[in-house]
Amino acid sequence: MVVSPINGSSPLSHSNGRTIPLSTFSRNSFVNVEKGDPVAFRSYWEKVRDECTVEIKGDEWMSYLGDTNNLCWYMVPQMRDAILRLHNVVGNAVTKDKFLVLGTGSSQLYQALLYALSPSESSHRPINVVAAAPYYSEYKDATDILQSRLFQWTGDAALYDKDEPYIEVVTSPNNPDGTLRVPVVNSRVEGKIIYDLAYYWPQYTPITDQLDHDVMVFTFSKCTGHAGSRIGWAFVKDIEVAKKMIRFTQLNSIGVSRESQIRAAKMIGVICDGYKNLKSIESDHLFFDYSKRLMKERWEKFKIAIEKSKVFTLTKYPTSYCHFNKDLSEQYPAFAWLKCVEGIKDGESYLENLKIRTRGGERFGVSSKYVRVSMIGTDDEFNELCTRLSNAKRE
Amino acid sequence: MVVSPINGSSPLSHSNGRTIPLSTFSRNSFVNVEKGDPVAFRSYWEKVRDECTVEIKGDEWMSYLGDTNNLCWYMVPQMRDAILRLHNVVGNAVTKDKFLVLGTGSSQLYQALLYALSPSESSHRPINVVAAAPYYSEYKDATDILQSRLFQWTGDAALYDKDEPYIEVVTSPNNPDGTLRVPVVNSRVEGKIIYDLAYYWPQYTPITDQLDHDVMVFTFSKCTGHAGSRIGWAFVKDIEVAKKMIRFTQLNSIGVSRESQIRAAKMIGVICDGYKNLKSIESDHLFFDYSKRLMKERWEKFKIAIEKSKVFTLTKYPTSYCHFNKDLSEQYPAFAWLKCVEGIKDGESYLENLKIRTRGGERFGVSSKYVRVSMIGTDDEFNELCTRLSNAKRE
Repeated sequence: MVVSPINGSSPLSHSNGRTIPLSTFSRNSFVNVEKGDPVAFRSYWEKVRDECTVEIKGDEWMSYLGDTNNLCWYMVPQMRDAILRLHNVVGNAVTKDKFLVLGTGSSQLYQALLYALSPSESSHRPINVVAAAPYYSEYKDATDILQSRLFQWTGDAALYDKDEPYIEVVTSPNNPDGTLRVPVVNSRVEGKIIYDLAYYWPQYTPITDQLDHDVMVFTFSKCTGHAGSRIGWAFVKDIEVAKKMIRFTQLNSIGVSRESQIRAAKMIGVICDGYKNLKSIESDHLFFDYSKRLMKERWEKFKIAIEKSKVFTLTKYPTSYCHFNKDLSEQYPAFAWLKCVEGIKDGESYLENLKIRTRGGERFGVSSKYVRVSMIGTDDEFNELCTRLSNAKRE
Repeated sequence: MVVSPINGSSPLSHSNGRTIPLSTFSRNSFVNVEKGDPVAFRSYWEKVRDECTVEIKGDEWMSYLGDTNNLCWYMVPQMRDAILRLHNVVGNAVTKDKFLVLGTGSSQLYQALLYALSPSESSHRPINVVAAAPYYSEYKDATDILQSRLFQWTGDAALYDKDEPYIEVVTSPNNPDGTLRVPVVNSRVEGKIIYDLAYYWPQYTPITDQLDHDVMVFTFSKCTGHAGSRIGWAFVKDIEVAKKMIRFTQLNSIGVSRESQIRAAKMIGVICDGYKNLKSIESDHLFFDYSKRLMKERWEKFKIAIEKSKVFTLTKYPTSYCHFNKDLSEQYPAFAWLKCVEGIKDGESYLENLKIRTRGGERFGVSSKYVRVSMIGTDDEFNELCTRLSNAKRE
C-alpha cells in the first residue's frame, strides 16, 4: 500500500469504478479471500446495467432533509418505499408497526443501536454487549473503539453468566459460519437483542420465516452487492429507540447520502419489478434466482476442492423449505467456515503458505483451527482459490 | 412531524428532490432560519444542472474499495483529484505533504479526529475538548454522546485553565458568529488543534491566507451547498493521526458513499473548469462569484432590516484583501449573529413571537441575549425574514 502524503507531482491512477478482471494469477500472487467484498454479483448488474442507470442533476437532492414528514427525516420517500417493497417481495421480515431507520451501512446502525439500547441513567455501569462465538470479527472493536461508559464488549454470549443488563447480537445467518441463530444467553435479567440480518436473503439461505423481532438490521451491501453505497436500515419496534438512533446518526454524519439512497431505491426497484413481471422475464434476469444459482455453483465447486484438500472440514447446513423460492433448499453462505483436520493448528497460516489470504478463527472469538474464506469475491479469485485448495498437500 | 410507524395503508408523499418554493408565507406560518441547510445556492446549480449531471450504471462502484493504492482506501481517485484541484483554484489551504482523509460529512471527521487525537494509553484521563464561545452548538453533544473515556467536552476554550492535555476546536470563520478565529487556550501544556474550516470559502469571507495547519477539516455541504451528499474531508499532517481516522471511519461506516464521491467530484470539476476558462465564461457562471454576490445582496438587505427593527445589533466584520478575488472584501457569513439591545433578554423567544424560528445563544455557550439566524435558506424564507424583522416593534 502506497502511503505517501500528497505531493504535487505524484501520478494518479484513474479507475472507471469496475474491477478489471485479472485473467491469471501468478504463482506468487495472493488470492485475497480475507474480506467480504460482495463483488460476485456484478455479473448480474452488468446484464441490467442500463436499466439501472441513475441520473442526478446538479440542483437535485441538495438539502440535508429527505422527508420532514418522517421521523427519519434524512430518508427520502423513494428509499423508504423501496425497502418496504423489497421486504414485501422477499417475505423475510414483518415491517408493519415498526419504525424504519436508515444508516450509512449497517455499521453505523450497530453503533446507533448500542447508544439507543444502553440505559440512559449515568449511574448504571456499561451495559454488556455479547454475541455467540464465532461472532463477526468487527463487533468487538466497533463496540470498544471509543471506550464508552454506556456499553462494553463482553465476548461470547454462550459464556455470559452475569445477572446484569446486556445486549445480545444475533447474526443470522451468522458471519462467519453461516448458521441460523437464535439468542443463547441464559440470564435472570432480560436482555435486549439486535438481530443482524445482513445475510437473510434468498441467495444465501432459505427464507424460512417472516421475522418479527423488535430490532432487525439489514444492509444493501450483502443484499445486492452494492457495498460502495453504504446503505443499511433497521426496523425498530420502540419509537424511543428509533428516536435515539436518529439522534445518533444526526450527530455522527447528519444523515445518509442522498445519492446512495436514490441509487439504492432504483436498484431495489429493478429487482422487485423483475419478480412482479415474473412470467415475461427470463429467470436469468431475476436477481435472487441468478445470485442463488451463482452461490450454489460456487459452493458445489468449493466442496469438491475442500474434499480434495483433505486438510479442512466444512460446516454442515440443514435443508429447509424456502417460502420465497417455494422449494426445499440448502444454505449457500457468503463465507465458508473451515476447520482444520487433526494435526493442523492454524488454518490462516496454513492457507497463507498456499498464498491464500483469509481471516483466522481468533478474530472471531474461537480457536485458530478455524478460518473464514469469502465466497463472494470475483470469479477469478474464487476459481484460483478452488485450484489452490484442490492442490493443497498436507505437509 | 408525523411519527407513526409503518402501516400498509399510509399515503406516502413523493418529492423530486427539489424544494418547492413557497410563494407566500401566511401570517401564522413560521419562518424557519434555525438550521443551516445551505439551499441558497440552488439557483446557481439550476443554471448548470445539465452540465453537472452524473450518471451511474448498475454495475459501477460496487466495491467497498475506492483506491487500494491510497491510505484512505475508500476514497476514489476522482474525489481525491477534485479536492486537490479545488484547493489549488481557491488557494485556501496548503495540501502538499498532508494526508487526505475523506468522511461522511465533517461530522464524522470530527468524531474520527477526537478518537485519533486522544492519548491511546488507557491510564490517561479523558482529554479535554474545548472551543471558544460562542461555539458550534453540536460540538458538545457530538463529543459527549457516547460518554467516551478518551475525550470529554470541557466547554469554553477562553476559560480553560487546566494544565492537562486538550484538543481545541478552532472554527474559522466561526459558526455561529462569522468571526475569523485563532486558538485562544493559554496553558502550559501543548494542545492539539482541529481547524474546522467549513466556511473558509470565498462566498463567505476573503481568503486571506493559504492555511497550513496540522489538522484542517472542510465540508462539501457549505462549499457548494450539496448538504445531502455527506462529503467532508480533512488534511492531516501526521500519518498516525490519518491512520487512526481511517480506522475509525472503517468501523463507523466502512467508508464513504461512492455515489456521493462521484457526484461531488463532478460538481467540483464544473466549478474549477469555470475558473480555468475564465475569459470565455460569464461571471454569473462562476460559482464563487455568483454565490458571493448572492451572500452580499442578502447581507445588505438584512442589515437594513436589522436597523429598522431597532431590536438587535450585528457583529461587525473587518474588510480584508482576498487573494482569490484579488480585491478588498467584507465577510458575508452563513449565519447572522444578533445581539438584543438593552431590555431584551431572550432573542430566540423574541423572534419566536414574530414567528421566526432561530437558535438561541445558550446553545452556543453564551447568553440568551444572542441568537443565530441562517442566511443560506431559500429566497422566500430569507425575504420573509427581512420583512418580519423590519416590521418588528419593540414590546
